[in-house]
Amino acid sequence: MTPEEFRKSGHEVVDWIADYLRDVGTLPVSPNVKPGALIDALPSSAPETGEPMDAILKDFRDLIVPGLTHWNHPRFLAYFAISASGPGILGEMLAAGLNVNQLLWKTSPAATELELVTLGWLRQWLGLPEEFFGIIHDTASTGTMHAILAAREAAAPGIRHSGEFPALTLYASEHAHSSVDKGALAVGTGLAHIRHVPSDAEFRMSPAALESLIQADVASAKKPFCIVATVGTTSAASVDPIRPIAEIAARYGLWLHVDAAYAGTAAILEEHRHILDGAHLADSLVVNPHKWLFAPVDISALYTRRPEVMRRAVALTDAPPYLLADGAHREVNLSEYSLALGRRFRSLKLWFVLRSFGRQGIAEVLRRHMDAAQTIAQEIAAHPDFEIAAPVLFSLVCFRYKGSDEDNRRLLEQVNASGEALLSSTVLNKQVVLRMAIGNIGTTMDEVRRVWALVVRLSRHAG
Amino acid sequence: MTPEEFRKSGHEVVDWIADYLRDVGTLPVSPNVKPGALIDALPSSAPETGEPMDAILKDFRDLIVPGLTHWNHPRFLAYFAISASGPGILGEMLAAGLNVNQLLWKTSPAATELELVTLGWLRQWLGLPEEFFGIIHDTASTGTMHAILAAREAAAPGIRHSGEFPALTLYASEHAHSSVDKGALAVGTGLAHIRHVPSDAEFRMSPAALESLIQADVASAKKPFCIVATVGTTSAASVDPIRPIAEIAARYGLWLHVDAAYAGTAAILEEHRHILDGAHLADSLVVNPHKWLFAPVDISALYTRRPEVMRRAVALTDAPPYLLADGAHREVNLSEYSLALGRRFRSLKLWFVLRSFGRQGIAEVLRRHMDAAQTIAQEIAAHPDFEIAAPVLFSLVCFRYKGSDEDNRRLLEQVNASGEALLSSTVLNKQVVLRMAIGNIGTTMDEVRRVWALVVRLSRHAG
Repeated sequence: MTPEEFRKSGHEVVDWIADYLRDVGTLPVSPNVKPGALIDALPSSAPETGEPMDAILKDFRDLIVPGLTHWNHPRFLAYFAISASGPGILGEMLAAGLNVNQLLWKTSPAATELELVTLGWLRQWLGLPEEFFGIIHDTASTGTMHAILAAREAAAPGIRHSGEFPALTLYASEHAHSSVDKGALAVGTGLAHIRHVPSDAEFRMSPAALESLIQADVASAKKPFCIVATVGTTSAASVDPIRPIAEIAARYGLWLHVDAAYAGTAAILEEHRHILDGAHLADSLVVNPHKWLFAPVDISALYTRRPEVMRRAVALTDAPPYLLADGAHREVNLSEYSLALGRRFRSLKLWFVLRSFGRQGIAEVLRRHMDAAQTIAQEIAAHPDFEIAAPVLFSLVCFRYKGSDEDNRRLLEQVNASGEALLSSTVLNKQVVLRMAIGNIGTTMDEVRRVWALVVRLSRHAG
Repeated sequence: MTPEEFRKSGHEVVDWIADYLRDVGTLPVSPNVKPGALIDALPSSAPETGEPMDAILKDFRDLIVPGLTHWNHPRFLAYFAISASGPGILGEMLAAGLNVNQLLWKTSPAATELELVTLGWLRQWLGLPEEFFGIIHDTASTGTMHAILAAREAAAPGIRHSGEFPALTLYASEHAHSSVDKGALAVGTGLAHIRHVPSDAEFRMSPAALESLIQADVASAKKPFCIVATVGTTSAASVDPIRPIAEIAARYGLWLHVDAAYAGTAAILEEHRHILDGAHLADSLVVNPHKWLFAPVDISALYTRRPEVMRRAVALTDAPPYLLADGAHREVNLSEYSLALGRRFRSLKLWFVLRSFGRQGIAEVLRRHMDAAQTIAQEIAAHPDFEIAAPVLFSLVCFRYKGSDEDNRRLLEQVNASGEALLSSTVLNKQVVLRMAIGNIGTTMDEVRRVWALVVRLSRHAG
């Protein structure tokens, strides 16, 4: 494909994306397709000779798009809703065109430095201390796994050489994300040594229960090494109390990792800054610009107060020569802090987003989402057939139909099968609960009301 | 940003990318910048209010681009040269616009199924057996780490629950990529238990040496668990003999992972198919479409003959219900096979590339690269001041100036400082060696000759 052919098709693609962003709200949120539908629609082998781009784009529109779930849809309220904002898409387009691989500083100085700059900017917005060193990973799962690996290195540095493991134990709330268990499993913490700490009535990790578990493990010759606190749990968006947990971590010498993948962004707002109270005491923290900061997937920011431990946990070489006296990292090889060597130019889209929105622009969207959540939560609470299932702290509303789990599951299926909206579910207090996650940049109060009206309408048949 | 504003800026961005792809050969390959130059040029904080896209794009052009190393440059011959081809960029643009997250089949059926389809197509091109199940990771480092984790699970399934480690030992050639050691370190293999197997005169792992090391470990109560063979080593692009290594793996019950990140693609050509001879016996294999298959970074394909072990190594839940009787995976949740939960729609760009080029189109570029490598290698070998340092099997030419290591290092610095070309270096037989890695889609024989002439010219000053 010549640059001129690229230009022609590129303009077509931009028009398609612009139309898509404009019209996505008119599409079914999720497709009504049977497993294997696309597999059966495509040839069983790749073509022997090249095909024209027009044919590929036609198949994209006719075969791929109808089989997608539209995460950019304003009535996508499942999981944690996300958005590829326009500025973020533009940044991603340019990153694809440049195709730099910033494995080392010298393999693209500006790419490495833009990562340092944008993560510094975000760190300021979140109110985290300057010594927090940031690095971009694909997802919070990967970032959390690296944090647990660093925790292992801090607690049992002998493993690095000998591979001989003490009985390491890890602590996370019973509502922590599954990636915590996955990451712990990967670095060698047996599932039997992962403690799911009980939470209180508002789904927050209980510091007292945490400390009891640690004490019991110490008493039975286990070696506690890591605590993961969550700011914005997946099920209920609850917030573990970081400060008392950090005090426990300090008392027992454990690494504290904070998973703020979704809700961390809310700390950009003064009135929500308190959710990260005590986070400056954490050893690491992860927050996802691709969740509630409108950058396209994937981009997750991992901060650590102890970069030298993070580095030792994954690097094969000796301490880096670029650590300057003032602690600033300027000529840094970011791949020395991660298992992946190759690194996309992910900071570019974040830079586009941060500049295009500005702090106030981001704050405005977050407040709109949270206001919509509060408003609809009041309407849900006021409805005789429904109840709110968890405090609404951010933009996630957990609620349930006052019926059986089966009623709620059926209601969810009907809502989602309608194509009008997409919700997800979870289990809180052993009951099936519906989740309405407001986070798409196009989601307005009107859209949320429309979904709520649909839920009410369909619930009448459920009873 | 409204869809219409996106449309306007999107067209500008496409024009910029098209111009860039057309003109990149006129830019310095790598920038002449001091560490921190971009950091100093950018504001120390993100803006309080949003900025116009024109200002952001202007800064992108004026501040970011001059600080980049241009991996898309036709005289970028360092590391393994790569390219974002036009079709690949188009696919990436659409993926950014759609922003689907294919964590589960149902969260975007067509995205999951396109991953199965494209990796199936690529598997056929490589001549791998149908039972090889493929999944996309960001990089080969990540894929290899997952393979080593699966190897751990296969050899010592008790770790999963208890976290109690036997003395696991891993084997890879002394020329294997550093990601093997990093991956082993992460999953709990101590560095003291990683064996770097000696290689022969052509930098290929010696099966006899491998077997001796395994026997010695068995005799001293170690537990060998994994062998990593490399097809296309980073230093010299040498090819470990997979078949005899696979026979040893079978004899001792070890997991065999094949790292074919760069050179695996060459197996698309009938005349190079033999490099994967025996790969059907491997337990896993990784190959990078973002290396020599012209997809933008990042996309790495990890295949495994034992997906159920790969799944058990990272999944927290029981065996999946979707494994159909005929072994076909249709409604598969790919995140159950990886530590990362979130998954970008990476297969889209691969689909664009495979269809737009076709097998013959890809084969043509690979042959052009390899022909250029052979031709220039002959010229280098014929020059009285230079010598070839490793057999030229693919598109990598390792050579050296017949002088000291310091002479070669100085020559490399001068070449790279010229901005005319970018080479890298390695150490073979304890000598510094220059690497000319031909892999950019725009690299022609003329460009390679121009680089070689520059090397010769600069070498005259070096003597």
